[in-house]
Amino acid sequence: MLRVRAWRSLSPVCRGVHLSAWKRTQSHTAAAARLDLGGIYPPIATPFTAKEDVDYQKLEGNLQKYAKIPFKGLVVQGSNGEYPYLTEEERVEVVKTVRRSLPTDKLLMAGSGCESTRATVQLTEKMAAAGADVVLVVTPCFYKGKMDGRALIQHFTKVADSSPVPVVLYSVPANTGLELPLDAVVQLSQHPNILGLKDSGGDISRIGLIVHKTKTQDFQVLAGSAGFLMAAYCVGAVGGVCALANVLGQELCELERLCVSGRWDEARVLQQRLIEPNAAVTRKLGVPALKQAMEWFGFHGGACRSPLQPLTEAEAQQLRRDFSSNGWL
Amino acid sequence: MLRVRAWRSLSPVCRGVHLSAWKRTQSHTAAAARLDLGGIYPPIATPFTAKEDVDYQKLEGNLQKYAKIPFKGLVVQGSNGEYPYLTEEERVEVVKTVRRSLPTDKLLMAGSGCESTRATVQLTEKMAAAGADVVLVVTPCFYKGKMDGRALIQHFTKVADSSPVPVVLYSVPANTGLELPLDAVVQLSQHPNILGLKDSGGDISRIGLIVHKTKTQDFQVLAGSAGFLMAAYCVGAVGGVCALANVLGQELCELERLCVSGRWDEARVLQQRLIEPNAAVTRKLGVPALKQAMEWFGFHGGACRSPLQPLTEAEAQQLRRDFSSNGWL
Amino acid sequence: MLRVRAWRSLSPVCRGVHLSAWKRTQSHTAAAARLDLGGIYPPIATPFTAKEDVDYQKLEGNLQKYAKIPFKGLVVQGSNGEYPYLTEEERVEVVKTVRRSLPTDKLLMAGSGCESTRATVQLTEKMAAAGADVVLVVTPCFYKGKMDGRALIQHFTKVADSSPVPVVLYSVPANTGLELPLDAVVQLSQHPNILGLKDSGGDISRIGLIVHKTKTQDFQVLAGSAGFLMAAYCVGAVGGVCALANVLGQELCELERLCVSGRWDEARVLQQRLIEPNAAVTRKLGVPALKQAMEWFGFHGGACRSPLQPLTEAEAQQLRRDFSSNGWL
Amino acid sequence: MLRVRAWRSLSPVCRGVHLSAWKRTQSHTAAAARLDLGGIYPPIATPFTAKEDVDYQKLEGNLQKYAKIPFKGLVVQGSNGEYPYLTEEERVEVVKTVRRSLPTDKLLMAGSGCESTRATVQLTEKMAAAGADVVLVVTPCFYKGKMDGRALIQHFTKVADSSPVPVVLYSVPANTGLELPLDAVVQLSQHPNILGLKDSGGDISRIGLIVHKTKTQDFQVLAGSAGFLMAAYCVGAVGGVCALANVLGQELCELERLCVSGRWDEARVLQQRLIEPNAAVTRKLGVPALKQAMEWFGFHGGACRSPLQPLTEAEAQQLRRDFSSNGWL
Repeated sequence: MLRVRAWRSLSPVCRGVHLSAWKRTQSHTAAAARLDLGGIYPPIATPFTAKEDVDYQKLEGNLQKYAKIPFKGLVVQGSNGEYPYLTEEERVEVVKTVRRSLPTDKLLMAGSGCESTRATVQLTEKMAAAGADVVLVVTPCFYKGKMDGRALIQHFTKVADSSPVPVVLYSVPANTGLELPLDAVVQLSQHPNILGLKDSGGDISRIGLIVHKTKTQDFQVLAGSAGFLMAAYCVGAVGGVCALANVLGQELCELERLCVSGRWDEARVLQQRLIEPNAAVTRKLGVPALKQAMEWFGFHGGACRSPLQPLTEAEAQQLRRDFSSNGWL
Repeated sequence: MLRVRAWRSLSPVCRGVHLSAWKRTQSHTAAAARLDLGGIYPPIATPFTAKEDVDYQKLEGNLQKYAKIPFKGLVVQGSNGEYPYLTEEERVEVVKTVRRSLPTDKLLMAGSGCESTRATVQLTEKMAAAGADVVLVVTPCFYKGKMDGRALIQHFTKVADSSPVPVVLYSVPANTGLELPLDAVVQLSQHPNILGLKDSGGDISRIGLIVHKTKTQDFQVLAGSAGFLMAAYCVGAVGGVCALANVLGQELCELERLCVSGRWDEARVLQQRLIEPNAAVTRKLGVPALKQAMEWFGFHGGACRSPLQPLTEAEAQQLRRDFSSNGWL
Repeated sequence: MLRVRAWRSLSPVCRGVHLSAWKRTQSHTAAAARLDLGGIYPPIATPFTAKEDVDYQKLEGNLQKYAKIPFKGLVVQGSNGEYPYLTEEERVEVVKTVRRSLPTDKLLMAGSGCESTRATVQLTEKMAAAGADVVLVVTPCFYKGKMDGRALIQHFTKVADSSPVPVVLYSVPANTGLELPLDAVVQLSQHPNILGLKDSGGDISRIGLIVHKTKTQDFQVLAGSAGFLMAAYCVGAVGGVCALANVLGQELCELERLCVSGRWDEARVLQQRLIEPNAAVTRKLGVPALKQAMEWFGFHGGACRSPLQPLTEAEAQQLRRDFSSNGWL
Repeated sequence: MLRVRAWRSLSPVCRGVHLSAWKRTQSHTAAAARLDLGGIYPPIATPFTAKEDVDYQKLEGNLQKYAKIPFKGLVVQGSNGEYPYLTEEERVEVVKTVRRSLPTDKLLMAGSGCESTRATVQLTEKMAAAGADVVLVVTPCFYKGKMDGRALIQHFTKVADSSPVPVVLYSVPANTGLELPLDAVVQLSQHPNILGLKDSGGDISRIGLIVHKTKTQDFQVLAGSAGFLMAAYCVGAVGGVCALANVLGQELCELERLCVSGRWDEARVLQQRLIEPNAAVTRKLGVPALKQAMEWFGFHGGACRSPLQPLTEAEAQQLRRDFSSNGWL
């Protein structure tokens, strides 16, 4: 694995400038150093037709609405995109569809993680070819007893070595049943083609420590959920990939603005009103609730692919309460 | 969902007779009622070449050796087959390869579980067409917070409704992070095309209770690991799908014989010598250890696909000790 | 730590003979080797008055009824005795009360575990003075992150070194959040004053392996719950300490008799009917349910000390169903 | 349960003024409303002699050193005080000793939690009589399966109803294996004699939500560990009870000052250097490590009561590294 500390410390970081056309012609080392991930990303949902086919028309409808919100970019096929339920062809086609609609000043971060290293390498290449600026690579998890630091470092290193675009690590224990170990994150942060980490576990001490131990690497940490977004900014994260941004995107960008500009008292008031709605569309009721709430807020949500079930009536009422009691409905 | 209790209670059960050619021309209802699952199955490993391609030649070498052991059949692409690391094409091709070699009096049970219901339905059909007598369908698990009884009953019912061959449920919490709830098992046991359950969790009270609560359904429970095989027989299971059978197949068939014939004192002595080697190739050291032990016992094991790593030297020594201290090496 | 393998292998084991008067005058080494623990024990409940004081009269009423059941003995202040809610004085007084009533051919096994080693040593002495034949010592658990094999071996060794009566180890992860590690059990089995283990975790592979690895030590394993009693006998346990024996004591002694005499088919039928009632009074609904069921079956149960709450109406109905659907009510 | 929202909103909060003499003559309602908990508390360790007796002289030595640090007060017999290893008499005697030494402008918060409600009520009274200004009451945990919101609300309500001094709730899942449910916290926050919560779980979304849902109750949340102290302040906590304050007390008070005065960028730099040393003396290596580090920094630490073991040489080196690599040694 290359170590590019010296190189990086010399390299200018053009924060806020999106250079994907240029970047694709450069070596990934250069690309990795230049991309600024800071900001808010909705991990977009995948709409389906009544027959459970991908509904590209509704997807584009959502994209048009998201274009009006000051997101840093979109995550396509994070956990909320039901990617484990899509075929590889569908995964690539959805990315292509998003690429066509996405304004050029927004980042497209595409989930390309698979269980095996070889499948991840291949899908990463396809995602880059389909227009991804960055890939988001989840920890493999089926053989969780064997997915220790050694295995995960080797996996991510191989993927990053061959990826045409920069890689963001993705740790989401609620779904995978494992956390990317801190020591592995620190070692992987030295790879020139690994830009950062989306951490959905929410352990704020861990997030602070990752920022601390990777600070010489220009490594960027994204909060993986809106519930701890403000706290994550507080300890040094640069942004968030938040399911709730599919529903309350403008509000999350406002929270980002307050945090980045140091207006913590105002941020706290807004953050607190977002915790319960966020928990409802993630941990408590999951993707079906996210899609239901999207419908209430003017987006296309609709049903999930089976075996994810629609909300029961009682769940829908609970969901509504979690938004209305915080003044959002 | 159909209820066929009355029908089943009339139907003769031809224990020990393998009728797959006949069965495929019949309705699945009849097929489900007739198949006897009782016995031992190795969930076979998938050998790879140095380049991590499936090594069909080595696979056939193993099959020839397994043909001499009185297994009830083979499980192709249980967890030990590294199925999450195979493409769909590879999964089907491996089943076809096994089908060509397998004596006609042995059952071929093929893993066809995917995360989405639609993918599972499709792969189930391909597996049946490739020659599977039975499919083994693991619980979907990525959205584990939403995989409650309601979702899993719907999933397995849809799969069983459309499957050309009988279905065996598969609960393996160490890998999936969830257990198929007992109430869901009991309800699914009433489906005419669901034959039984492979339970790898090892909670022996649960296994006994499942046998008890499904006894009017002729529902067959298979122990998912050699560590609790004798105890499972004791409380009413009919067989086992045991990783260790890839290594000590003859011995596990002997343990079966002792249990089935009520020679419990002899069984106990043999069972106790198998617990540590079994733990070593499953929970403690996983598939890489299973493949290493296969090499020691004359089978083709070899390396796993990445990100599964080869054993360290210390792990290999531990593995050897777990076999040798019990008199197997 | 002494090793007495040779001594033990020569020593006659007087199975079924209770020699506590003699034993108390001997060295603990001899005592440990002679005591046969085999059989069924109810871990008796502690009745309280309306003011939550120990109701010694009701306790004696229960003891008179238990005297008619062929138990091997009684466990006083296992988890079901609400021992963490009693003062030290009450713990000792309850043991004295039981001692006065208990027929001389029954064993009195008294819980003497505390968090610190020194408190456990002191209470163990008091329990022996109060008439305990054996002490049952639970794993300390508050600092669970530090309760590794090293700490637990030292703890149990110190307690056994000084105890006037033999010691039985007690592992109950549902309450303590930790399991006594297998390697620690094996090492502790060599102590001349440690007789055996009550294992309430229910991992049947572990129980079989403990029997296997301690067989040269004459170490006796007791199943800690009725749900896996038959399976535990099957793999080599010698008895059970079962909450359900407070309610269905005669039936559990019958299950013991069937297992010990090798009538496994009859045992299976009986075992299966006991799993659900057992789960109801332990894992599912706990001590309040045990005490409620005791009332239904003619024993004094009554309320628990606070903060344990009485069953809700819905819980009481569930409890009744778990007994009645298995033919016990 | 009384509701005193209106009353509270009128009541002046005398921040920073210690009025325990006056308070003890008032009703607990008034006391509860007046006490400001904001600030840093070390949960002091209990030194022992070579014979494992409480070493009151060394305790006083530590207290003299702590008197020079701008702590808000001291927590006596939080988890780091090894309270489960002390007798009731020792617990009370340690509080009396601290009371004698403690400057009158510092709060004495004494742990009085026991498993049963009645024991907790009694010890709470003794602690108040011994000079505690506030009691810290941990969740009972042995019967964790039954310690739901209903049981815990009843427990804490009874304790608070009868306590002569205000009560702080204490949730520490790493030791107890359960978390005080959020809904229970919200309901208990309405009790006039319940002042706040020490939350050691570290789920920052939960902490933010508790602050949000109790804001009309003047309910005060204290971070239970230094690892997330800054983040907790950020989302609305008022202070911290931090094991690390036994070692780096001045530094934690400095971190408090930076957070309270809104100097978040400076706070972040300091916070990040504290995460690893904090993890070392808590989650990773526990109380023995805390006491070892205290020795290095000029306090009396010494050995723990058994079964807590001294650090191994390797652990001591790891501990040293976690301090030195962050510039503290």
